[in-house]
Amino acid sequence: MAYTVTPWEVKGDVEYDKLIKEFGTFPLTDKLLARLEKHAGGLHPYLRRKLFFSHRDFDWILNRYEKGEKFVLYTGRGPSGNTHIGHLVPWIFTRWLQEKFGAKLYFQLTDDEKFWLNQGMDLNDTTSFGYENALDIIAVGFDPKLTKIFNDTEYAKTLYPIAAKVAKRTTLSTAKAIFGFKDSSNIGITFFPAMQAAPCFLPTILEGKNTPVLIPAAIDQDPYWRVSRDAAPKLGWYKPAQIHSKFLPGLGGGKMSASDPASCVYTTDAPEVAEKKVMSALTGGRDTIAEQRQLGGKPDKCVVYDWHFYLFEHDDRAVEERFRKCKKGELMCGDCKKDLAGYVTKFLGEHQKRREKAKKNIDRFISRD
Amino acid sequence: MAYTVTPWEVKGDVEYDKLIKEFGTFPLTDKLLARLEKHAGGLHPYLRRKLFFSHRDFDWILNRYEKGEKFVLYTGRGPSGNTHIGHLVPWIFTRWLQEKFGAKLYFQLTDDEKFWLNQGMDLNDTTSFGYENALDIIAVGFDPKLTKIFNDTEYAKTLYPIAAKVAKRTTLSTAKAIFGFKDSSNIGITFFPAMQAAPCFLPTILEGKNTPVLIPAAIDQDPYWRVSRDAAPKLGWYKPAQIHSKFLPGLGGGKMSASDPASCVYTTDAPEVAEKKVMSALTGGRDTIAEQRQLGGKPDKCVVYDWHFYLFEHDDRAVEERFRKCKKGELMCGDCKKDLAGYVTKFLGEHQKRREKAKKNIDRFISRD
Repeated sequence: MAYTVTPWEVKGDVEYDKLIKEFGTFPLTDKLLARLEKHAGGLHPYLRRKLFFSHRDFDWILNRYEKGEKFVLYTGRGPSGNTHIGHLVPWIFTRWLQEKFGAKLYFQLTDDEKFWLNQGMDLNDTTSFGYENALDIIAVGFDPKLTKIFNDTEYAKTLYPIAAKVAKRTTLSTAKAIFGFKDSSNIGITFFPAMQAAPCFLPTILEGKNTPVLIPAAIDQDPYWRVSRDAAPKLGWYKPAQIHSKFLPGLGGGKMSASDPASCVYTTDAPEVAEKKVMSALTGGRDTIAEQRQLGGKPDKCVVYDWHFYLFEHDDRAVEERFRKCKKGELMCGDCKKDLAGYVTKFLGEHQKRREKAKKNIDRFISRD
Repeated sequence: MAYTVTPWEVKGDVEYDKLIKEFGTFPLTDKLLARLEKHAGGLHPYLRRKLFFSHRDFDWILNRYEKGEKFVLYTGRGPSGNTHIGHLVPWIFTRWLQEKFGAKLYFQLTDDEKFWLNQGMDLNDTTSFGYENALDIIAVGFDPKLTKIFNDTEYAKTLYPIAAKVAKRTTLSTAKAIFGFKDSSNIGITFFPAMQAAPCFLPTILEGKNTPVLIPAAIDQDPYWRVSRDAAPKLGWYKPAQIHSKFLPGLGGGKMSASDPASCVYTTDAPEVAEKKVMSALTGGRDTIAEQRQLGGKPDKCVVYDWHFYLFEHDDRAVEERFRKCKKGELMCGDCKKDLAGYVTKFLGEHQKRREKAKKNIDRFISRD
């Protein structure tokens, strides 16, 4: 395999069509998108651009919805560092779903997981990062009346009994097979799949009746939901449905990673820092301007084009024009990166204002036992 | 080995001197008992009769105490059924320590553990048994101002972050070696050693400074504290000290077990039921009365004598007299059992009154997050 996708490692050139088959998920077909469009009154650009491309039981979610049963959203974040723009992708999409469907949202910050995984981190560190990350989550624009954000360790009285029920139905063998745990793993991280499963069933517990849950998340998180989906029928609960996104490439061409500052733009980066990162990005350009003019660029192998396409340039004609011009050698990488830097710094400016405002609102969102 | 002692299985004729060596614990010497006696103004009968016989760091607890540092008590119960008289032994002793040393007590009800271990039990079942068992705990006479009793699932916000820290320092290999977990174990029970360790450090967390903790419990629980004691120095916390009791034999001669009604007297048994159980107990008597008169009984191999000796006949002369008379063939088993039944029903009558009263007081003892 030329690529690896696990909850803790994504590397290589991911072939998403293959991944769907390997993971046993289903493609988000045009037919499904049309049904979604009907209810939402439109399609989010991430859907039109196939950034969200795969699902489990999303058709079932729509069936239920059409019968008058509302779904609840659940997504999460592992708080081991600052938020970058890639993290925002599923959140922005989740916010859109919340708005279009009036859906409640449970947002899990896995301070326990990140503590267990990072040798050098104390629990205080990951819980604090949880609060930092929560500012970005709130800045995305969720409705405080419909949204609960929580660190696992601060919401454990609610989560732990649900996790206990999932844990009882999950053997070490299963957890080892899915997550690659070894006997040298600590007994916290091997319990963690149960904690990550808990919010799948939280709406059912809190509402006192089986409640459909939809999880928008990057596809590397899919294995966790397999644990939830295995346990659900044994517990008499609905299986959680998922809608999966691809990974955005990092600015250097590899993975976008919070621990590699050059690969990503943090939500707290100053505009000039962000601009510099974008201007240093790997492109699909030729070695010289002359060559580029003559042969044209390779937008299909270009991080900068990907960011335009998936994140910022949602006007179809504009992005088609960018593609065409690049291929024809009419658009130089410097200019294209300048365009992207413009989008990024504009976005950052707005996000940072909302993030600042979130500091005053945070108590309206955070749930603690 | 002719016997097995693990947290989940005790069988065979336990040789306590050997067990001390195997477990690496220390005998409660007369010298230590004398120091304890000085501070407590006396010795509890369970100490005089060596029902408590082993320890870890109890000398250190006394050193600290002599330097003005008070210790906190911690003990627990796995709520998978009704309480029997054997369960009360460490509690009665813990209450004595509380009274003599003005010590705070944290009493853990491991509803999570028992749920994970018992296939047929729901979490509601074990949590409910926790409340049932709490009535017996309270009936033992603890001071409500110094005592907190909690079910793990209801106190998880407090316990889980502490457990998380222990869990990070405990590998699956260690847990497998100590508890015999297998890959077919569920991921709840393999996490549980961390939850049982958490109250060892709760006083240190709650009081904001390193606080000595003493755990009175049957010696089969010792492996759990090895996990705590391994983790403690890595976390900068005191190791918990322990004082260990032997096991009381069941009425049939084997293990006293809550799941074998004939082996034990439940605290809720009606007097006539308890009497009948005692009258059916295995004794060290001979086959016929004539033989007994001629050869004498075997009090050193007699459950009924053990119950007299350890539990009820705390007057040294009375119990010596009983031993002597039995050996001489002057005491018949029927009479000896009648004596025991008298003690048991008297005790039950008093306990059940206090247990009834506890129903009104339970909220003064139970801690929930």
